Amino acid sequence: MHGDEKRHVPAATVPRLTLYLRKLRELHAHGVARVSSKDLAAMIDLNPAQIRKDFSYFGEFGTRGVGYEVPRLIAEITRSLGLDRTWNAVIVGAGLLGTALARYRGFADQGFRLVGVFDSSPGVIGASYGSGRVRAIDEFEAFCAQERVDIALVTVPAAEAQTTVDRIAAAGVRAVLDFAPVRVSVPAGVIVRQVDLSSELMILAYSLADDGAGGDVS
Amino acid sequence: MHGDEKRHVPAATVPRLTLYLRKLRELHAHGVARVSSKDLAAMIDLNPAQIRKDFSYFGEFGTRGVGYEVPRLIAEITRSLGLDRTWNAVIVGAGLLGTALARYRGFADQGFRLVGVFDSSPGVIGASYGSGRVRAIDEFEAFCAQERVDIALVTVPAAEAQTTVDRIAAAGVRAVLDFAPVRVSVPAGVIVRQVDLSSELMILAYSLADDGAGGDVS
Repeated sequence: MHGDEKRHVPAATVPRLTLYLRKLRELHAHGVARVSSKDLAAMIDLNPAQIRKDFSYFGEFGTRGVGYEVPRLIAEITRSLGLDRTWNAVIVGAGLLGTALARYRGFADQGFRLVGVFDSSPGVIGASYGSGRVRAIDEFEAFCAQERVDIALVTVPAAEAQTTVDRIAAAGVRAVLDFAPVRVSVPAGVIVRQVDLSSELMILAYSLADDGAGGDVS
Repeated sequence: MHGDEKRHVPAATVPRLTLYLRKLRELHAHGVARVSSKDLAAMIDLNPAQIRKDFSYFGEFGTRGVGYEVPRLIAEITRSLGLDRTWNAVIVGAGLLGTALARYRGFADQGFRLVGVFDSSPGVIGASYGSGRVRAIDEFEAFCAQERVDIALVTVPAAEAQTTVDRIAAAGVRAVLDFAPVRVSVPAGVIVRQVDLSSELMILAYSLADDGAGGDVS
C-alpha cells in the first residue's frame, strides 16, 4: 500500500475519524459486525447525519436498515489516517513527562514505534525507560541519519523548546508534538501540534470562575 | 476579590489569554514594563489587531507609541481567567501518567494546588508521589466532603473512564480534565476537557501520510 492510493478526506474530518476508529475497534473486539450511523452516533455523542457524511468519503457502502460493515470501516479509516504503516517516533526530553510517555502502551497499539529517547542532562543519559536507554541529544543527528524518524515528541522545559524543535527540524523530522508550554515555530514542511496542559487547566479555571461559583479566595 | 467583580471576556478569547499571560509573565520576569501590541504579536505569532481587540475587554489603557503596562495586563488577565485564587485539584489514576502529572511543577505556578491522588489498585494505594501518598478511591467521597475539590484530572484506563467521571461528578467536582482516550459524558453543570494523546498522534500521522511522503510501509 502506498500513500498515493489513500483516499483523501478533508482535514477537518480527521479528529472525528480518530473517534470513530477507536469506537469501531472496540465494537469489532466485541464481535459486532455491523453498526448503523444512528447507533454509532449515540455511542460517541455525534449527529448521525454528520457520521453518514464523513463515511461517504469512503464510498457508498452503508445499507439502510443494515448499517455499515465494521471491519471495512476500520480498514478504510485506518488507511485514510495513514495508520496502515508504522511511524517511528522519538521523545526528546526524558523528564517525568517524557519518561511516562515512553512507557505509554497506547502508542504501539496505534502503529507508533518508539525508536529513541533523548536528553541533554548527563544525570539522565543512559537511564532505562523500560524498552531502552536514554541517549545523549548530541547523538540525535547521527541517529536520524541512520534510522527513519517520523515524529518527535518534545517534552523539554519551555526555555529549551524552540532550540530543540529547530534541531529536530534540521535533522529532517517532519512532525512534532510539543508538550512544552510555549508556542514554537517550525520551517515550512514541518507539522507541529501542541498539547498544553497548563493552558487546559486555565481554561477549566476560567469556566469555573465564570459560573460565579467555584473556589474561595485562599 | 469575588467572581462577580471579574470582567467578562468571551470564551473564544480564553486560549489566547493563556498565551498572553505566559508571555507577559516572562517579560515581567525580565524587567520589561511596557509592550506594544505589535511587539507582543511578533513574539507569539498573532495579529496585532487581534491582540488590541482582546485587550480592549480590559478597558482602554494601551497608549499609542508607548504600549501596554505589563503588570496591569498581567493582573487583568489573571483576574479574567479566575487565576487570582487557588484551585484545588485531584488526580484520579496513579499510573505512569498520573504520577508524572502529580510531580509536574507547572501546576503550582499557575495557582493549582494538588490536594490528593487516588487509585483503585491495592498495589498503588499508599505509594508516594513526592508530596503525598496515593489514597484509595473508596475514600474519594469522604475526601470531597472534607476538602474543596475544584478540578479532577482523570488518568485511568479507557474502560474505567466513564464510571470514574460519574463518581467524580456525583461527589460534587465541577471540572474534569480527561486524559483517557475515550469521550466521557458529564451531567449539566460539570465541565470536561479532553487531552487525547493518541488522537494527536493520529492527526500527525494523517498529515504526514497526506503529504504523500513520510514513512515506508513496514
